[in-house]
Amino acid sequence: MPYFDAASSLPLHPVARQALLAALDEGWADPARLHREGRRARLLLDAAREAAAGAVGCRPDELVFTPSGTRSLHTGIAGALAGRRRAGRALVVSAVEHSAVLHAAEAHEAGGGTVVRVPVDRTGRVDAAAFGAALRGDGSPGSGTALACLQSANHEVGTEQPVEEVAGFCAEVGVPLLVDAAQSLAWGPVPGRWSLLAASAHKWGGPGGVGLLAVRKGVRFAPPAPADERESGRSPGFADLPAIVAAAASLRAVRAEADAEAARLRALVDRVRAEVPALVPDVEVVGDPVRRLPHVVTFSCLYVDGEALLHALDRAGFSVSSGSSCTSSTLTPSHVLRAMGVLSEGNVRVSLPPGTAEADVDAFLAVLPEAVREVRDRLRVPSAAVSDAPHAAAGGPGGGEGGGTGGPEGTDSGREADLTVDSRGKRCPIPVIELAKVIGRVPVGGTVLLLADDEAARLDVPAWCEMRGHEYLGVRGHAHRVRRTA
Amino acid sequence: MPYFDAASSLPLHPVARQALLAALDEGWADPARLHREGRRARLLLDAAREAAAGAVGCRPDELVFTPSGTRSLHTGIAGALAGRRRAGRALVVSAVEHSAVLHAAEAHEAGGGTVVRVPVDRTGRVDAAAFGAALRGDGSPGSGTALACLQSANHEVGTEQPVEEVAGFCAEVGVPLLVDAAQSLAWGPVPGRWSLLAASAHKWGGPGGVGLLAVRKGVRFAPPAPADERESGRSPGFADLPAIVAAAASLRAVRAEADAEAARLRALVDRVRAEVPALVPDVEVVGDPVRRLPHVVTFSCLYVDGEALLHALDRAGFSVSSGSSCTSSTLTPSHVLRAMGVLSEGNVRVSLPPGTAEADVDAFLAVLPEAVREVRDRLRVPSAAVSDAPHAAAGGPGGGEGGGTGGPEGTDSGREADLTVDSRGKRCPIPVIELAKVIGRVPVGGTVLLLADDEAARLDVPAWCEMRGHEYLGVRGHAHRVRRTA
Repeated sequence: MPYFDAASSLPLHPVARQALLAALDEGWADPARLHREGRRARLLLDAAREAAAGAVGCRPDELVFTPSGTRSLHTGIAGALAGRRRAGRALVVSAVEHSAVLHAAEAHEAGGGTVVRVPVDRTGRVDAAAFGAALRGDGSPGSGTALACLQSANHEVGTEQPVEEVAGFCAEVGVPLLVDAAQSLAWGPVPGRWSLLAASAHKWGGPGGVGLLAVRKGVRFAPPAPADERESGRSPGFADLPAIVAAAASLRAVRAEADAEAARLRALVDRVRAEVPALVPDVEVVGDPVRRLPHVVTFSCLYVDGEALLHALDRAGFSVSSGSSCTSSTLTPSHVLRAMGVLSEGNVRVSLPPGTAEADVDAFLAVLPEAVREVRDRLRVPSAAVSDAPHAAAGGPGGGEGGGTGGPEGTDSGREADLTVDSRGKRCPIPVIELAKVIGRVPVGGTVLLLADDEAARLDVPAWCEMRGHEYLGVRGHAHRVRRTA
Repeated sequence: MPYFDAASSLPLHPVARQALLAALDEGWADPARLHREGRRARLLLDAAREAAAGAVGCRPDELVFTPSGTRSLHTGIAGALAGRRRAGRALVVSAVEHSAVLHAAEAHEAGGGTVVRVPVDRTGRVDAAAFGAALRGDGSPGSGTALACLQSANHEVGTEQPVEEVAGFCAEVGVPLLVDAAQSLAWGPVPGRWSLLAASAHKWGGPGGVGLLAVRKGVRFAPPAPADERESGRSPGFADLPAIVAAAASLRAVRAEADAEAARLRALVDRVRAEVPALVPDVEVVGDPVRRLPHVVTFSCLYVDGEALLHALDRAGFSVSSGSSCTSSTLTPSHVLRAMGVLSEGNVRVSLPPGTAEADVDAFLAVLPEAVREVRDRLRVPSAAVSDAPHAAAGGPGGGEGGGTGGPEGTDSGREADLTVDSRGKRCPIPVIELAKVIGRVPVGGTVLLLADDEAARLDVPAWCEMRGHEYLGVRGHAHRVRRTA
C-alpha cells in the first residue's frame, strides 16, 4: 500500500533499525557516569555526534541532540534571541516557516520582542533581496535584528528557499541565520554561511524523538532556563541513546543514496506535476516547479473537500496529507497556502518516500481522477461548473505576489450586486461550489455577492476567480464580490 | 559484571525490548495524520497512554508523554506556576529534590518568583509538619504559595518522603503538589492526593527519551511557550512512539514483579547496611534505614577519594555512583549530602537492579574492604587515623537536623589554636586526612585550626569530628577549628 506522506514521517530505514538494535545493549546507561557502562554509552554518543556533524557540515562540538526538530527550533530560536538581546529584539522569519518556528516567534512577541514575517511569492519562495532588506529593520531604537530564520525548503509545497543568498545578506549585517533543514537534510548539507541549523531524524528514516541542533562557534547563544548539564547545556534530560545512534547511522546511509534517489524521485514528481492537471479538471499545482525538493508535489482541486478526498485516496490505498482547512484542527487553511495566496480547497500533498516505485505513481494517477469525481459528485457540483476539458492551471514563478489576504479588502462598499448568495455557516468547499452554481445566472459584466464566513473562502474565492477567469472585486467583512467576465 | 547503579539508569527490560521491536513497524507515522499509518500510530499511542495512566493511577487524559523525566519536571513546574500565578509566586520544594527540580526553581527565582527550600533531617527526610508550615508562607502580600514539589523518594540515599501527609497539608491550603516519582514509580503508585506527577521510563527499564507528566483535572496549568498541538499542548514535538509503547509495557511488567522483588532487594540492602560498617572502618551509612527505597543504599568512607574508590570498584567489576565532590563536574559535594549534613568523602551509592543475585552482593562485600584500603594506602592515611576495629557509624533517624552549613559559623573569632594546618588548595579528602594526622599532636582539650578552601571540607570536617568523637568548634572563612576531646 503506497505511503505518500514522506514529508510527514518516514518508516525506519533498515540501517536505522540495525543500528538501533545494535545499540540497545550498550546504549542504556548514563553517558555522564564514570563506570564502564557509562563510558560505553559515552563512546556511542560521541561516535553518533561525529557522524551526524559530518553530515550536517559542522564540528562535533557544535552539534547537540534534542528530542525533536520542534525542540531544536524552539531552543535554537530562544537561545539565539537571548544571546543577541543586546543587538536588538527583532526576529525575521519567512511567512511559510514550519509552525514550530512561527510558534516560537509568537512566544517572542508575547515576551515583548518583534517579529518581521517576510512574504513569499505564489510559488512559496521568499525574495532574497526582500529578506535582506527586512534584516535591516527600520532603524528605530531597539529595532535591531537579533536573528533570522529561513527553512531550506518548504514542508508543504517543496519550494526551496534562497538560503545561500540570504545567508550572505545575514553575514553582511552580522545577523545569525537559523536554517530549518528538516525537509532537506536527507538530500544534502545546507550550503552557505548559516549560523544555526535544526533538523529531525524521523524525516530521513531515523527514529522519532531525535532532533539535531547545530550552533556554530562564535554565535552568541544563551540556552533557555532551566539549566541542565547535558548536551552542552542545550538540551536537558536523559536522551534515548540507541535512537540517537540510529539517527546518525541512517543519515549517513540516506546520504549515500541521496543523489541517485533524488534524480529518480524528481522525475516521478515531474510526471505528477504534468499529468494531474491533464487528468483532473480544475486543479492548481502549487510550488516552484524547478527549485524544489525532489520528492514533494502539492496540488489543490476546486470544489473538493480535502478531508473527503484524503479518505477516498486512503480507501484506494494511498496515504497523503492536506493543507485544507477541513483537515486542520483549527479549521483554517494551512498558513503556507494562505501566504502563497493559492487555492486551499481539495489540497493534496504527495511526498514520495525513497524507493517509491514508478508503478505506485502510475496507480495513483489512475485512481486520482475517479476519487476527485466521487467527492465532487457527493457534493453535487454541477457539471457546468467543472471545466469541459482538464487544463494545466499549474502556478509557476512570476505568478504574482501572494500574501493570503485574498484580494483587496474594503474596496467595494455600497454597490449593489446582481445576485446575492448566502453561504454563511457553510464550510469549504461549499461556498465556492454555490458561487460556481450561480455565476451563469448573471450576465457577463454582472456581479455576485457571496456571503461566506468560512476562513478558507478568503483564499479560495479569489483563487477560483483566477482559475475560472472571473474578476475578484474584493471582500468586506464576509461579503465577497465577484464580476462575471466570461 | 554486576551493575549496581540502577538508580541512574537500567538496562532495557525484556518486555520493553519486545514491545519496542513490535512497535517499530507500526509506530513511525505521525499519529495526528488521517491516513491509515497515522491511525495505526494513534491506536498505539492511545493504548500506551491508557496502560501508563493505569500504573500511575490517573485518567488517560491527565497523562502526557514527554522526552524525559527532567522535561516532565521542567514543564510541570513551569506550567503549574504559570497557571497559579494569581495565587502567588512562591514555590516550596525540599532541599533534596532532583537537580531538575532545583534548576526549575532557580529559573523561577530568576523570573522574579520566590523559592522556599524545606530542610531535611540527617536521614534526608523532610518533616511533613515543617513542609506544611512552609506552604503557608509569611502572609506578606504576594507570598502565596503557587506550587509545592516533593520527591516520593530520594535518588541519592533512597529515603522516602512523607508524600501522603504533605499532600494532605497541600489539600488543606489548596496548593497543588507535584510529586517527582522518578525513583519509586516502578515499585508502586504514589499514594495521596497529589496534583501533578513526573517520572522517567529509563529508571524502570523502559527506554531513554520517555518521561511521564500527569496533571490532574482541575489543576490550573498553563504550558510554557512556544505553543504546540501535541500531547494536549504540554509536550511539543514528534515523539518516539515505539519508545513510548515500550515504556508503558515495561512499567506494567515491572509492577507485576514489584512486591516480590522489593522484598528480596530490601533484604539484600539490609545486609549491605549492616555489614559495610562492620567490614570497613570509619564508614557512615546514610539515609533512612527503614523508610527507604528497597534497592538503594549509600555510605561514605572517611579518608577516601570517591573517584578513586569508584575506579577501584569498577576495576573489580562493580559499577556504582558517588555524590563526592571529586566525581562532580562542579567539584562540590552532592546537594543531597550537604542538605543532610553527612560525610561526603568516599561516598558510594549502591542501587541494585531487579534480579540482582545474592552472590553479587556477597562479592561486593568481599571486595569493598580491600578497595577502600587500597585508596587509603595510596593517600598515605596513617594507620593511627583509622579506627582499630570497624564500628557501625550508621546515621539513623533522630540524628539531628542537617543543613549543610558544617556547624556554627563565626562563633570562634580571635582565639588561638594549639596547632594550625594549612590545607588550602588541596581537595577532598586530603584536608580531613591532614587533620587526622595531626589531631594526636595536641593535648586532649587542645584545638587544631585547619585551613581548607575545598567546598567539601565544610561538610566533611564536622562529619569527621562527629565520627571520631572530637568537637567541631566552627568555621570562619576557610578556617575550621576542632577541639580534641578523646
